Amino acid sequence: MPIPSASYSITMRLQLDDDPRAIGRVTTAVGDAGAAVTAVDIVESRGASMTVDLTANTTDGDHAEKVAAAVDGIEGVAVRKKSDRTFLLHIGGKIAVRPKVSVRNRDDLSMAYTPGVARVCQAIADNPEDARRLTIKRNTIAVVTDGSAVLGLGNIGAAAAMPVMEGKAVLFKEFAGVDAWPVCLDTQDTEEIIRIVEAIAPAYGGINLEDIAAPRCFEIERRLSERLDIPVFHDDQHGTAVVTLGALSNALRLTGKRLDQARVVLTGIGAAGVAIIRILHAQGVGEILACDRKGVLNRHREDLDESKAWVAEHTNPDDKGGGVQEALEGADVFIGVSGPNILEPSDLRVMADDAIVFALANPIPEVDPSGARDHAAVVATGRSDEPNQINNVLAFPGIFRGALDAGAHTITDRMNVAAAMAIAGMVGDEELRPNYIVPSVFNTGVVEAVAEAIAAAAREDPPAEASEPATGDEPVAAV
Amino acid sequence: MPIPSASYSITMRLQLDDDPRAIGRVTTAVGDAGAAVTAVDIVESRGASMTVDLTANTTDGDHAEKVAAAVDGIEGVAVRKKSDRTFLLHIGGKIAVRPKVSVRNRDDLSMAYTPGVARVCQAIADNPEDARRLTIKRNTIAVVTDGSAVLGLGNIGAAAAMPVMEGKAVLFKEFAGVDAWPVCLDTQDTEEIIRIVEAIAPAYGGINLEDIAAPRCFEIERRLSERLDIPVFHDDQHGTAVVTLGALSNALRLTGKRLDQARVVLTGIGAAGVAIIRILHAQGVGEILACDRKGVLNRHREDLDESKAWVAEHTNPDDKGGGVQEALEGADVFIGVSGPNILEPSDLRVMADDAIVFALANPIPEVDPSGARDHAAVVATGRSDEPNQINNVLAFPGIFRGALDAGAHTITDRMNVAAAMAIAGMVGDEELRPNYIVPSVFNTGVVEAVAEAIAAAAREDPPAEASEPATGDEPVAAV
Repeated sequence: MPIPSASYSITMRLQLDDDPRAIGRVTTAVGDAGAAVTAVDIVESRGASMTVDLTANTTDGDHAEKVAAAVDGIEGVAVRKKSDRTFLLHIGGKIAVRPKVSVRNRDDLSMAYTPGVARVCQAIADNPEDARRLTIKRNTIAVVTDGSAVLGLGNIGAAAAMPVMEGKAVLFKEFAGVDAWPVCLDTQDTEEIIRIVEAIAPAYGGINLEDIAAPRCFEIERRLSERLDIPVFHDDQHGTAVVTLGALSNALRLTGKRLDQARVVLTGIGAAGVAIIRILHAQGVGEILACDRKGVLNRHREDLDESKAWVAEHTNPDDKGGGVQEALEGADVFIGVSGPNILEPSDLRVMADDAIVFALANPIPEVDPSGARDHAAVVATGRSDEPNQINNVLAFPGIFRGALDAGAHTITDRMNVAAAMAIAGMVGDEELRPNYIVPSVFNTGVVEAVAEAIAAAAREDPPAEASEPATGDEPVAAV
Repeated sequence: MPIPSASYSITMRLQLDDDPRAIGRVTTAVGDAGAAVTAVDIVESRGASMTVDLTANTTDGDHAEKVAAAVDGIEGVAVRKKSDRTFLLHIGGKIAVRPKVSVRNRDDLSMAYTPGVARVCQAIADNPEDARRLTIKRNTIAVVTDGSAVLGLGNIGAAAAMPVMEGKAVLFKEFAGVDAWPVCLDTQDTEEIIRIVEAIAPAYGGINLEDIAAPRCFEIERRLSERLDIPVFHDDQHGTAVVTLGALSNALRLTGKRLDQARVVLTGIGAAGVAIIRILHAQGVGEILACDRKGVLNRHREDLDESKAWVAEHTNPDDKGGGVQEALEGADVFIGVSGPNILEPSDLRVMADDAIVFALANPIPEVDPSGARDHAAVVATGRSDEPNQINNVLAFPGIFRGALDAGAHTITDRMNVAAAMAIAGMVGDEELRPNYIVPSVFNTGVVEAVAEAIAAAAREDPPAEASEPATGDEPVAAV
């Protein structure tokens, strides 16, 4: 049974007869219908009737309708209006532009705009590095999408992707003070996306690629990283990989296992899957078996695109075949970044003792987390209503905060690993337990720790190094 | 002698001996050096010395140096630091992103971001028109430049153009509540600019093209207007044309002349010149003689590009030749949007009685405005330190405010004329005089009047009409 949540929260405006028990009857009816009352506000109480705004969390759109119908069916109660709080919150969008200077008089105008601004422009024309000092570039990034892989919704296009990109901009600002602007592109042509991002780059100190489908996303990120002198970071890849590595590091610490001896099975070779494999590989993981819908990737598979071929080349040293179930035999770690319910909890029985299960498909994990706990020592998901949520919000705000602070030109594998270790480090030895391997997204220390780690790693890294497939890299931090 | 202005304002931190006359000596020295003291702030007064911040307007960078040197030369006074206020104001840029929703807890997050946001995305995917309701599109425009014709600085490129575009964003927000975002493109290829603006358009409710060189700007605006369902407005063209028409309308009212009988000479066939000619032509102006560096445009000239050829075709009915001086003979109106000092005041003697002179080149007009007043009834410039400043700030904030309010898909010639008339209407009959033909940019009624006029005209216009060369249009408003 799904849990009522704020994301399906409704506010009903009710007209009640003047009966002291009326409100009680309403809240009881809402509860009986499976919703959770979160607020009751009296709007007006006059004469023989009363106007009340009742807010309740429901489980989905149909459920909200049923709850309203149940309330409307009570004698002496009428539902005058039903509003969806999530939609209300989105009206007019979620971000605005805020001037940092005022133009109340001629002097203001002559400094912020013509004629004074001409000198500032000339200074940047003479010394392009001054752009970071005299424009918003220093603290501003673009959140770029082509709308091709938005959340679980798929290819919904640029306009429909806006609410996610605006939300991301809100998170960047609220969590890390980074000014982020949505760039939703009405094209899904790789070359065109690359050219457009190159062309808009002068205004920005970083590029966050978002919800761009694999395998296109790999080439876009690689080529932009090569061409631009500002960091380019595909959050669906590296944000997920960073948080996964941080959480895995803590899960291994808890279970007394070592990454260089761990056997990992991963399902889903999309943006997140490839990035997780790359970061684990670079960290010297014991063994990875990577599975797509057709089974384990190996060197005999002839149906692989470039990114999957790289995976087949750099995992599965014994060239095993078979499906996920066979791969799981004796595995220490399962990481799912694929789809809902591909495993039964009992499938996990064949894993090694103290198994670690990260079932990250959202909203429905690869395996039921409650059932998984019967067979695994640590279970993590992407859900906010389960312990151990693997949430990119732990990574991306601090990563860009640190990169901007350091004036970084790129985000290297080393920087990503540093971020993962900073996230892991937020859970102390005395706090670490099966249901607490990652900090809360509302732990304000996380951004600070990640930003410091990123900035420190940026200052150590040679500036020319790009975030390339980490084929021959040495592990750069002990996990 | 140039007038000291805030755009060259400096703040000096001074160390003074503890002498009651020290500050007086400093302010006298600053005044003697030709600068204007605007503030004296005591920072610290301790023991035998005093720290003072002195702010003064100067005329340019060299002058600021001389003023500081003069102060430093006073006995008992040392200049510890000299800051340029215009540069100080630009540090870190002039705009920021402001979240309109907060994410303080899990409920906030689940509505503004995942999972709740998915429903909002789906709603837009199902009904694209909802983008105007549920995203920032409704109140947000892009300020797009390729950095090819920035102020008087010319082709300084995308990064160096940022301070102007940020300044424009500040003005849009402060004057009209419009969220504007700078899009500075590192390309000057017409096709690429068109494709990029098309691709980024889903996020925006309007496109303000800015500081793009002629003739490229004409094609970019025309083709984007055809392709996009949001207004595309090149401010250097139409903003200037709107304010010029508004001011000219008042100047004609003041001098008792009629537009349909007026003989106009215009110099400078760039973005502004062509747009002014188009709007005057559409309004049924008596006659226009348009001049470039080689003289009057006529049908015999074989050196004309497409936009100049259009001008030659639609002006100069008698196919005159010659230069500006000859063209001015008997002219009622001179409009300069070309370059500094191309005329002597005495050149204006040949104009008709009650001549109107708009010398709009900035910062140095086509003819000295003081001298021009000896020969003309009305003189206007682009300068803020002369009466009758023809400033686009009078037009663009209200034009986009009105277009967004009306959900306009285009800005038609009719809408531009309505805006011009609204600006003209802000100067009442009893206020109208040779030194007051346009309202102040700080008159808050202007934006409101322009926005209302634009929105009303938008609602009257058929939605498919684009802002095309107005070859056969009837005049749409009495001037």
